[in-house]
Amino acid sequence: MVGGGRGAFIGAVHRIAAALDQQIELVCGALSSDPERARASGADLFLAPDRCYGSYEEMIRAEAKLPAGRRMDFIAIVTPNHVHFPPAKMALENGFHVLSDKPATFNLTEAKKIGELVKKTGLLYGLTHNYTGYPLVKEARAMIRAGKLGKVRKVVVEYPQGWLATRLEATGQKQAGWRTDPKRSGAAGSMGDIGTHAENLAEYVTGLQIDELAADLTAFVKGRKLDDDGNVLLRFKGGAKGVLHCSQISVGEENNLNIRVYGELGGIEWHQREPNSMLVKWLDQPMQVYRAANGYLGAAAKAATRTPPAHPEGYLEAFANIYKNFANHIRARLDGRKPAADDPALDYPKIEDGVRGMAFIEAVVQSSKRNAAWTKVKA
Amino acid sequence: MVGGGRGAFIGAVHRIAAALDQQIELVCGALSSDPERARASGADLFLAPDRCYGSYEEMIRAEAKLPAGRRMDFIAIVTPNHVHFPPAKMALENGFHVLSDKPATFNLTEAKKIGELVKKTGLLYGLTHNYTGYPLVKEARAMIRAGKLGKVRKVVVEYPQGWLATRLEATGQKQAGWRTDPKRSGAAGSMGDIGTHAENLAEYVTGLQIDELAADLTAFVKGRKLDDDGNVLLRFKGGAKGVLHCSQISVGEENNLNIRVYGELGGIEWHQREPNSMLVKWLDQPMQVYRAANGYLGAAAKAATRTPPAHPEGYLEAFANIYKNFANHIRARLDGRKPAADDPALDYPKIEDGVRGMAFIEAVVQSSKRNAAWTKVKA
Amino acid sequence: MVGGGRGAFIGAVHRIAAALDQQIELVCGALSSDPERARASGADLFLAPDRCYGSYEEMIRAEAKLPAGRRMDFIAIVTPNHVHFPPAKMALENGFHVLSDKPATFNLTEAKKIGELVKKTGLLYGLTHNYTGYPLVKEARAMIRAGKLGKVRKVVVEYPQGWLATRLEATGQKQAGWRTDPKRSGAAGSMGDIGTHAENLAEYVTGLQIDELAADLTAFVKGRKLDDDGNVLLRFKGGAKGVLHCSQISVGEENNLNIRVYGELGGIEWHQREPNSMLVKWLDQPMQVYRAANGYLGAAAKAATRTPPAHPEGYLEAFANIYKNFANHIRARLDGRKPAADDPALDYPKIEDGVRGMAFIEAVVQSSKRNAAWTKVKA
Amino acid sequence: MVGGGRGAFIGAVHRIAAALDQQIELVCGALSSDPERARASGADLFLAPDRCYGSYEEMIRAEAKLPAGRRMDFIAIVTPNHVHFPPAKMALENGFHVLSDKPATFNLTEAKKIGELVKKTGLLYGLTHNYTGYPLVKEARAMIRAGKLGKVRKVVVEYPQGWLATRLEATGQKQAGWRTDPKRSGAAGSMGDIGTHAENLAEYVTGLQIDELAADLTAFVKGRKLDDDGNVLLRFKGGAKGVLHCSQISVGEENNLNIRVYGELGGIEWHQREPNSMLVKWLDQPMQVYRAANGYLGAAAKAATRTPPAHPEGYLEAFANIYKNFANHIRARLDGRKPAADDPALDYPKIEDGVRGMAFIEAVVQSSKRNAAWTKVKA
Repeated sequence: MVGGGRGAFIGAVHRIAAALDQQIELVCGALSSDPERARASGADLFLAPDRCYGSYEEMIRAEAKLPAGRRMDFIAIVTPNHVHFPPAKMALENGFHVLSDKPATFNLTEAKKIGELVKKTGLLYGLTHNYTGYPLVKEARAMIRAGKLGKVRKVVVEYPQGWLATRLEATGQKQAGWRTDPKRSGAAGSMGDIGTHAENLAEYVTGLQIDELAADLTAFVKGRKLDDDGNVLLRFKGGAKGVLHCSQISVGEENNLNIRVYGELGGIEWHQREPNSMLVKWLDQPMQVYRAANGYLGAAAKAATRTPPAHPEGYLEAFANIYKNFANHIRARLDGRKPAADDPALDYPKIEDGVRGMAFIEAVVQSSKRNAAWTKVKA
Repeated sequence: MVGGGRGAFIGAVHRIAAALDQQIELVCGALSSDPERARASGADLFLAPDRCYGSYEEMIRAEAKLPAGRRMDFIAIVTPNHVHFPPAKMALENGFHVLSDKPATFNLTEAKKIGELVKKTGLLYGLTHNYTGYPLVKEARAMIRAGKLGKVRKVVVEYPQGWLATRLEATGQKQAGWRTDPKRSGAAGSMGDIGTHAENLAEYVTGLQIDELAADLTAFVKGRKLDDDGNVLLRFKGGAKGVLHCSQISVGEENNLNIRVYGELGGIEWHQREPNSMLVKWLDQPMQVYRAANGYLGAAAKAATRTPPAHPEGYLEAFANIYKNFANHIRARLDGRKPAADDPALDYPKIEDGVRGMAFIEAVVQSSKRNAAWTKVKA
Repeated sequence: MVGGGRGAFIGAVHRIAAALDQQIELVCGALSSDPERARASGADLFLAPDRCYGSYEEMIRAEAKLPAGRRMDFIAIVTPNHVHFPPAKMALENGFHVLSDKPATFNLTEAKKIGELVKKTGLLYGLTHNYTGYPLVKEARAMIRAGKLGKVRKVVVEYPQGWLATRLEATGQKQAGWRTDPKRSGAAGSMGDIGTHAENLAEYVTGLQIDELAADLTAFVKGRKLDDDGNVLLRFKGGAKGVLHCSQISVGEENNLNIRVYGELGGIEWHQREPNSMLVKWLDQPMQVYRAANGYLGAAAKAATRTPPAHPEGYLEAFANIYKNFANHIRARLDGRKPAADDPALDYPKIEDGVRGMAFIEAVVQSSKRNAAWTKVKA
Repeated sequence: MVGGGRGAFIGAVHRIAAALDQQIELVCGALSSDPERARASGADLFLAPDRCYGSYEEMIRAEAKLPAGRRMDFIAIVTPNHVHFPPAKMALENGFHVLSDKPATFNLTEAKKIGELVKKTGLLYGLTHNYTGYPLVKEARAMIRAGKLGKVRKVVVEYPQGWLATRLEATGQKQAGWRTDPKRSGAAGSMGDIGTHAENLAEYVTGLQIDELAADLTAFVKGRKLDDDGNVLLRFKGGAKGVLHCSQISVGEENNLNIRVYGELGGIEWHQREPNSMLVKWLDQPMQVYRAANGYLGAAAKAATRTPPAHPEGYLEAFANIYKNFANHIRARLDGRKPAADDPALDYPKIEDGVRGMAFIEAVVQSSKRNAAWTKVKA
């Protein structure tokens, strides 16, 4: 694991996600850019002292020298955005699979380089667009793929939060600090942090790609350098239209990613806040409430489920589904198996999703600079 | 009453709304453009046969000749959009107050003419933007006016319906017929029919005016001439941003007008579908659920309420609030009283709202034709 | 109208309910037990002065002398419980149909006497158990009658309110005053006021009769003479079991009547607070959300509906459905028509429901006195 | 771990709960009563072959002989009810702490014996009444303890499920099999399986003990020997009243444990189905929606939380909180610390809760046999 030492948020989430299914063991780490803290954090996690490294470079080099059965199987990157590319690149170049937090990289160019490396090395790359790990999100995708909703016409995807409604970064809060800093976060603020999750969710669920968009980004909080709110018109390839908006200044909203998709025959609505319910809407028939873990769901949803109905699974379980499927994929490699391309047990976001996410960020930033002119998403 | 004979929808709604508080009596009507049906419809409603007129022209002329105590006090216009302007104009010119269904007229020019006539005659003009008749909508407005949410930053207003997801107009369905016909509906389809309600709600609640907008309208159903879906980026005077989208092809959505407003200190969320609840959101405090008819609500909400908490009032009561307040205003005139400008008992949409609605329609249509270019709302 | 003068609550509700469909006109009244107030209240309502009576006795006598076409068609009783029986009896004896607020009378004996009078005179008697006027309540009944849920096994019916959580009657509040006074309310407090609504709803929806019950009533507020809370075990004829509880000390509950019924094949859930939705639950299939006014509903629900989906109808409309159907029944009599027994346009609570309600009250009071011993509901 | 081999449900839940916080490692197991399956199941879980035992007796004996640093720290019992007591007893007698699935034992006598053993040995005993592991349940308890709701008057606790609405046990389904079998489940069916959770939740949240109860249990499904539904009137020590009902034949209900508590000043409402929200109700003030992980929550809720607001935690996390706190307690013992009695990090259900649960089961069964006569809960 690179990053995720004391004081970090997402590192602990990754570790729980990895531990949950008892198939992955944390064996080494470069847990902080501060070597002292890196080692102390390692001790917290029962890591062997000689595998608490002071930097990811050191870790990759040292682990690569270990015998095959003893070295780490893959590297997990949980650093701020500007430190996604370097360890990912180095890991791939040294023969390690990579699981990275999103967005894939700091900019589109970097993402494409990782894409090329993945192709060249044949190694696995996973990206924790964790919200697509929810069973009902997978059910939505499967329903749309199967044509149950008919041709998709309209998509509304939202990601409102309120935690940056004041200038939290001025208080020294670590999460707010790097996310509002162009040097560490990238070209976009809210759009990079959460807008990409919305974009990824919309494309994952519908199976459609955003063709072009018109974006109006705003930094509402005085002194903030990156957008903390953005409204985007969407046009998908194939004719569907939509709206994407995200915000970190929507006071009182916690983490309310949600999506509605309307096809010619039906519609779906899903809210991450209550992730075990999905509304399914029909022409002239009563709305249905799909609930996680029920027998009427399809294979993809079932493969992503651990408990019976209304034994609610949440954020950590969805996150763990990314890890589980990534681990499944590694194991299939180790076992020499060639699983089917659409095996639900191997469904996780890959570098292609990362490239699209970076292209989305660049498009919204560019569009907004040109007064919301239509801009192609070029990935 | 002009329009609203047998087979009409909104006429019956107006009549219930007028009857509900037992202050208004239907005394005459030109209930259909077909004189035969006009008279039959009048009989259904216990109208005196000699006051069942064959046309609005006939009615206005005849009633104007009756002595002051016997003639109608005002005219209610419940016809399709292209027949809003002529009777409104003629009524005002003949000394009658006017209560009209929305949108005010067929186009902006007509609306401005009505505005001038109202100014010139000093008569009253009310517009049934009925959704602002709900108690909690009035509470939201009052809260924002009082500064409780701080400066408004973001507005999300939606109006999805699904009833026109198929080509219903081809089946002879009357409501679908005129709404999708540019000759009777006007320059916009869904945007004129329901988008204007969303625009009116947003401006009413926030007290802000939309300055400019970028609109992407679509007619998804093959062969349809007017938009059945539209997505709009909003910029309000004063710096707030927002999104407005409406749809009549969102399968499974009934009549789901809703609004969210976020200020610097708090936010509100209201859904017409469950109109007696409003979510109120705060920085670092639990969300509150305001419920209609409670003692903690302000004067405006209370004046719009007839029953105790959780004796739910709905669409007809909100509609009746427009009628009630319009009647209150007429009575104040009759009594020679000069009520305060912000008397909640006299709060109803006026011609200014109608003009803004028509300007909104023209702006969205124009913007959409220019590929969602930013367009000013000129009212 | 008997009762319902200035300061009353339910009288105004009855008048709106009667006015809403424009088929009933208030022509006379004995609106208060205080003759002065009776006349003043009549003037508020545009009643002819000579038909503002000082007492119901005076009214019934005077109206009976008027010619058939001019006298009132029926009498509406909206007084406190102890004044339900006398005017109902006198009206029936003088040839007038009766529409009474619930509970039917002060005690079971009186109710049975009214029952005998109705039988003897052949006159119509309606009771405003208004909550069965909701479209989706009628749909629930129809579904269960049609066997869609299979044999009913379990019923949970609740009616929590919180408005009497403090000793409101000590403040002079009129509604609290008579409801907590055994001389005006009857043998039960909350059970008579709202428990009977719950009982009526359960029997109406399921089509089953409560056979016996075990009740634990409590007066939580110090100094209160009648129950303000009660919990009841139910056994229905035919083997279904259930729970009924009501409360007026459940702080924060407004008027949350709700019911859940489970049969062998499915279940329904309905909340008066959001009356236009009903959950329908199935074995191994997704839950459905039935919504008022949709085409997929049955004839009974449709006959009780005035507006399209998500143009919410509420308490007053449901109340008006009782008036409308009662008026329909009177009109059928006047027209000499003999409608089918299950004509949905004539569905309203009758004296049989009133007798059962009084028997329920007597049973819960008796059971509670005997420490919740099983007690038969003898009606 | 005793039980929880291939085909079991709750064993896997326990293992995830134990693994989640990376503080507990599964080191040995007697995972099935079938020695062959026990060993195969151990291999699935990466257990060392020599610590895959064929029976719990073998395991306890063998582990007891291992040196202190190598042997298991505690035993987790995840077997059907009739196999809770023997391994718990033997483990305590051999110096091992015990974490047991609920109900504690097969009957009250056994539970009391365990209670005596715990007292005598000074060892720790935890019981997975996992639903009290939710952060908002802890918040509710803390609010009531702090007097924020005033004196508690009424409690409504429900636990409807529908999965046994048909005779599932006849199909060979393992979970249904033992739960409906008096020899393995105990004196009660639904009341033992889920009613005890409801009882435990009610007593935990309110801090009150049920004094006496009147229960009406039913086996609705033909041929079933144990209750699959039960309705209970509750009287708490101190004067509060309540209703508890549970069901496994409520078609369409998944796992809907929920509770409402009303005090003199306020009320709370919580549903396990959506565990990250809690409604808080007040006299004359808007209802509040408490949401997990927010800064306004108290210490107990915070100590039970891993992720930020609206990164929903669910069943497994609540379950893990029992494990985490039990492990915290063991660690405090190992470290020689004496934590405060109300340290939230050590809050987990203990043998006292287990004894009360068994006393509750015996009381409901006895009451129901005596036609719902009031019966004391003697623990």
